[in-house]
Amino acid sequence: MSHTPFFAKNTGYQAWLGYNRLAGKTLEQYADYRRIVVAEQDEIIVSAVAELVRGLEGMLGQTPEISQIWDGGSGIVIGTIGGNTLLQEFIDEETRAGIGAEGFAIQSDLSAGRIAIGAVSSAGVLYGVFHLLRLIGIGSPISDLHIVENPVNQLRMINQWDNIDGSIERGYAGNSIFYADGKINSDLQRIRDYARLLASTGVNALSINNVNVHRLETMLITEAYLPEVAGLAGIFRNYGIKLFLSINYAAPLEIGGLLTADPLDTEVRRWWRERAADIYRYIPDFGGFLVKADSENRPGPFTYGRDHADGANMLAEALDPHGGVVIWRCFVYNCKQDWRDRKTDRARAAYDHFVPLDGRFHDNVILQVKNGPIDFQVREPVSPLLGAMPATNQMIEFQITQEYTGQQRHVCYLVPQWKEVLEFDTYLQGEGTSVGRIVDGSAHGSRYSGFAAVSNIGDGTNWTGHLLAQANLYGYGRLAWNPRLTAEEIAEEWIRLTFGNEKRVVQTICGILLDSLSIYESYTAPLGIGFMVNPNHHYGPNVDGYEYSMWGTYHFADCHGIGVDRSKATGTGYTAQYAEPNFRLYESLDSCPDELLLFFHHVPYTHVLHSGKTVIQHIYDTHFEGAERAARLEIDWGSLTGLIPDSLHKQVALRLAEQAEHAKEWRDQINTYFLRKSGIPDERGRRIY
Amino acid sequence: MSHTPFFAKNTGYQAWLGYNRLAGKTLEQYADYRRIVVAEQDEIIVSAVAELVRGLEGMLGQTPEISQIWDGGSGIVIGTIGGNTLLQEFIDEETRAGIGAEGFAIQSDLSAGRIAIGAVSSAGVLYGVFHLLRLIGIGSPISDLHIVENPVNQLRMINQWDNIDGSIERGYAGNSIFYADGKINSDLQRIRDYARLLASTGVNALSINNVNVHRLETMLITEAYLPEVAGLAGIFRNYGIKLFLSINYAAPLEIGGLLTADPLDTEVRRWWRERAADIYRYIPDFGGFLVKADSENRPGPFTYGRDHADGANMLAEALDPHGGVVIWRCFVYNCKQDWRDRKTDRARAAYDHFVPLDGRFHDNVILQVKNGPIDFQVREPVSPLLGAMPATNQMIEFQITQEYTGQQRHVCYLVPQWKEVLEFDTYLQGEGTSVGRIVDGSAHGSRYSGFAAVSNIGDGTNWTGHLLAQANLYGYGRLAWNPRLTAEEIAEEWIRLTFGNEKRVVQTICGILLDSLSIYESYTAPLGIGFMVNPNHHYGPNVDGYEYSMWGTYHFADCHGIGVDRSKATGTGYTAQYAEPNFRLYESLDSCPDELLLFFHHVPYTHVLHSGKTVIQHIYDTHFEGAERAARLEIDWGSLTGLIPDSLHKQVALRLAEQAEHAKEWRDQINTYFLRKSGIPDERGRRIY
Repeated sequence: MSHTPFFAKNTGYQAWLGYNRLAGKTLEQYADYRRIVVAEQDEIIVSAVAELVRGLEGMLGQTPEISQIWDGGSGIVIGTIGGNTLLQEFIDEETRAGIGAEGFAIQSDLSAGRIAIGAVSSAGVLYGVFHLLRLIGIGSPISDLHIVENPVNQLRMINQWDNIDGSIERGYAGNSIFYADGKINSDLQRIRDYARLLASTGVNALSINNVNVHRLETMLITEAYLPEVAGLAGIFRNYGIKLFLSINYAAPLEIGGLLTADPLDTEVRRWWRERAADIYRYIPDFGGFLVKADSENRPGPFTYGRDHADGANMLAEALDPHGGVVIWRCFVYNCKQDWRDRKTDRARAAYDHFVPLDGRFHDNVILQVKNGPIDFQVREPVSPLLGAMPATNQMIEFQITQEYTGQQRHVCYLVPQWKEVLEFDTYLQGEGTSVGRIVDGSAHGSRYSGFAAVSNIGDGTNWTGHLLAQANLYGYGRLAWNPRLTAEEIAEEWIRLTFGNEKRVVQTICGILLDSLSIYESYTAPLGIGFMVNPNHHYGPNVDGYEYSMWGTYHFADCHGIGVDRSKATGTGYTAQYAEPNFRLYESLDSCPDELLLFFHHVPYTHVLHSGKTVIQHIYDTHFEGAERAARLEIDWGSLTGLIPDSLHKQVALRLAEQAEHAKEWRDQINTYFLRKSGIPDERGRRIY
Repeated sequence: MSHTPFFAKNTGYQAWLGYNRLAGKTLEQYADYRRIVVAEQDEIIVSAVAELVRGLEGMLGQTPEISQIWDGGSGIVIGTIGGNTLLQEFIDEETRAGIGAEGFAIQSDLSAGRIAIGAVSSAGVLYGVFHLLRLIGIGSPISDLHIVENPVNQLRMINQWDNIDGSIERGYAGNSIFYADGKINSDLQRIRDYARLLASTGVNALSINNVNVHRLETMLITEAYLPEVAGLAGIFRNYGIKLFLSINYAAPLEIGGLLTADPLDTEVRRWWRERAADIYRYIPDFGGFLVKADSENRPGPFTYGRDHADGANMLAEALDPHGGVVIWRCFVYNCKQDWRDRKTDRARAAYDHFVPLDGRFHDNVILQVKNGPIDFQVREPVSPLLGAMPATNQMIEFQITQEYTGQQRHVCYLVPQWKEVLEFDTYLQGEGTSVGRIVDGSAHGSRYSGFAAVSNIGDGTNWTGHLLAQANLYGYGRLAWNPRLTAEEIAEEWIRLTFGNEKRVVQTICGILLDSLSIYESYTAPLGIGFMVNPNHHYGPNVDGYEYSMWGTYHFADCHGIGVDRSKATGTGYTAQYAEPNFRLYESLDSCPDELLLFFHHVPYTHVLHSGKTVIQHIYDTHFEGAERAARLEIDWGSLTGLIPDSLHKQVALRLAEQAEHAKEWRDQINTYFLRKSGIPDERGRRIY
């Protein structure tokens, strides 16, 4: 093992763009590619060239030569098809025809030692460059490439939940990289590096402030902040990423001097049109607004007796002349529920609110729907709202930040969860109407569609607190680009780019990542019931933490049994929001999948699962096993000592040690709670307190 | 009903010193007393005269004449026996002989219409003046007074838990009146009025900063703050109140530049001596230090392998040359307990820590012991540490601020609780060794003893948030002065002084106050088990809120039963900390009082109480009844509309409405929790969720 500088002082800051020096045969195969030929100079191509230089320098150990003209021989030729005739020459016509707006082709000329990266747009060129660098980074041969890649999803967006005071709602990796003390940060280097990280995975849209828009953030759409917001937009523009802002629905009232925010009021509409015009003067390619309205005490059209279509359309009309869109979140439910009321079901809320409005939204409105009906739990069914509005643009919202999945103190690789959601067949247009096809727009021929996700980064050195949580940010972008990639393929890419290509390293970390979600699920809330976390911060076990609260997240455990009856026959009727055969699957106790049983049904502890175990024994067994498996992660990681940089090894080892301890706490609290409540002892007589 | 200014704009700020105008026959009986004769001019006597003028003006509607010499006729003569020969003349020798250091005598000359208030000290004069004003305020005849009063308790102290940023730990009535933003307030009027309020009840000592001493507060004992602290000391000195400071045990390390805070280290000892000398240069009558050490993560002598006697004695030696004392809190326990560990018992901790040290503390050290072994719950047994150290000074600590008793959003008149504690017979020196006799010093002939209590005031207009919570501050001072006063007598005084002498007003409010503790107890944690509150802020029900935490406060409820076995025979052995017959009383399930049953024993829900009810039915019944009784308080208060100022009526009505609602929440959460857990239905079939 060679001790390069990478090994000496790697802190995780470079993440998967560390461009670690290759060695041996891996290095030798890239010896020819030390020249870059580029004829264009727009801002994104400049970024692409800079990245290519940086990557080749890092990985190959030699600065590539850059030239504007081609004089034969080896090298990498990059550019747009329209802007550089060389690409028309080096990429065959059929291939060129397959390149979409953001896509790219990579073709090698085996004999000449030449690679061409061609695209329709500069952004495509950038994505092609990152793709090539990725291939080199993972040690893949590049001398005979015939690649065409187009992103499957149109919008590939990240939502920052950053506040202007520097805090991050549900942030677990330090403070905001964008703001501090009520101002936009003046040190922009970190933001530039974030743009590079995002672009390298294919992300093309970014909202830069929390959906809960507070007092000062409401001003982001005004002259008070727009000059600096435009500066940020410029940074991301260089990497093909459009900037969005979260807006405060009550802004006309709070900062506009108006007496209402009624979406049908003429003055209110004019006010928003003027704001949109202001913004586009500063940011001509501004993406649009992200809106959390009538949700968790945020203002919205309900205040004025209007509905969400009225509210969204007003904003859509303001943005439409400029090409902007409104992204309207569907996370709308009664957050002041009485826990005594068993009829109201938070899981029903988004569907009940929005489905009746299908067809009423303008075509530059996109509804952003969380992947599950509740709130980013480790296990939920897929939201039945996804696909249920064929005449409305929809995008899916995931949560990269690990609010309910260990807060980046536990390892929890989320790509398998996201893939399961995308592969879920809604049957809404017959068999094969997967969620993936709804959010890529193909199922309903939507004008706009795509992915959004809440970021997991902060100003901590390694961006994500837990180094292994970088895999979630990486994986999200890769999956949004190409949902057909497997969770394992994505994990392996990330590991190789981050830690190098040593086989044992790749296998071990891949094993840790791929097991991690199942491990986390096994020692936390059982069988799809969710929550059981400490209120507010949501870290750590608390079985009754939300049981008597107003948030609509209950388990109804008593001395006989547990679960929420959401059946149509005897419960809240939530199951009826699914099309057949999903409705019947969930409605029947016999067919309901074990892992979602308590989400859909209230059963006695003695109910026998498909696994053959009783519910109570399943709880005990999974919790004992989960804690043991968490402890093994620490051992597995320990086996990598010396194979990866100590600095990286140590930070993960510390987190895994905490996780192992905390998994025991989860195990004991959950098991004790249910032993005390049910009175049924563990069949295997293990220690429960 | 006359609409005096008092009725028009009373906000509660004047509290029981509003000196509301009297009327009719009540007023007429005081017609003679419109002259004040005073020959002395020291600062406390000046305060006394000013108060007498203010009080007579307010209540009688005429400014009294002040003269230095007596020329016969009616009036009020005040002064010290030694400083004014008139008092030797007007107060008979036998009476004079009964006046102690802080006591006073009041004698009327029925024929002359003259009243003499005489004392040994100026403070005694002040107390006498307040006493006379109280008699007038409650409409009591004063023409034939023969009173001698001496305070029963030596130290009658208030602890402010105020932080220098303006916050108050466990404060429920706004921010600090002492501090804001890291500075001592420059507007001193409010502080002066606080001194008047305290002095009027007999309080003679005050610590002005939180026992959890943070970074800036550590500096209060240095030149950085001492000039201003001395200013505050001056304000309180004028009202006979000595100033104390809470200190940070680690101050020598944190601000002294030393490498240790070891109490046996010579440099550390010198450092504290120097600090004491500094303080006394600024405040010659400085009271001393209040210390929370080795408690809830605060530093202390344990760090250096020393014990509490070593720690306290070091400080005592520093203060001794100046006459100061060290008040050392005994709230020492393991606050990082593992909830799985049923052997460790927080209730045992104070006794186990301190009793072995009896006799080792210097005689200017006082141990401050919380009234119960846990932490100011609505129902706890008396701390067995009280009286268990015959060779050590002890004082008792109460909590006026309603941390666990409704946080001044519920009415909870605490004087009955305090009296119950004081009347508890410890039998430590045989029958009759009441806690009252321990803390008044008579049981063991202690050099120092008395009362301390955590204040309930803030900068809210009416001082205490809930106007009725003023009765607790008033009652504490009166009880510390004279523990033989009944809770009803104190309540009635406070009501008359605050709301006037209308019979229906007095009866109704007195009913509310005297019922309030029992009502609050009935709908909160049952049968002495305590806690069941939301973590951290401690407001509102949460049965399992502390069940899986590290704080040592558990109920161990399972599907069979509930309670903590603290017996010697089968439990933690806590009962053995009590002398006979208390040990046997608590040890035996048969004799243990119902209201403390779950504190001492773990029993099945079907256990039959002395009341004849099962534990589970008791829980249901008390919670249904408690919520009903809380609702009746609102109705009772409503009946006073028009009889007391609207401004006062309204503020209390709002709080009682909140309490009635919140009592239902308590009822339903507790009942639902236990129905779900036990599976035993309510005998009376009432609605439980």
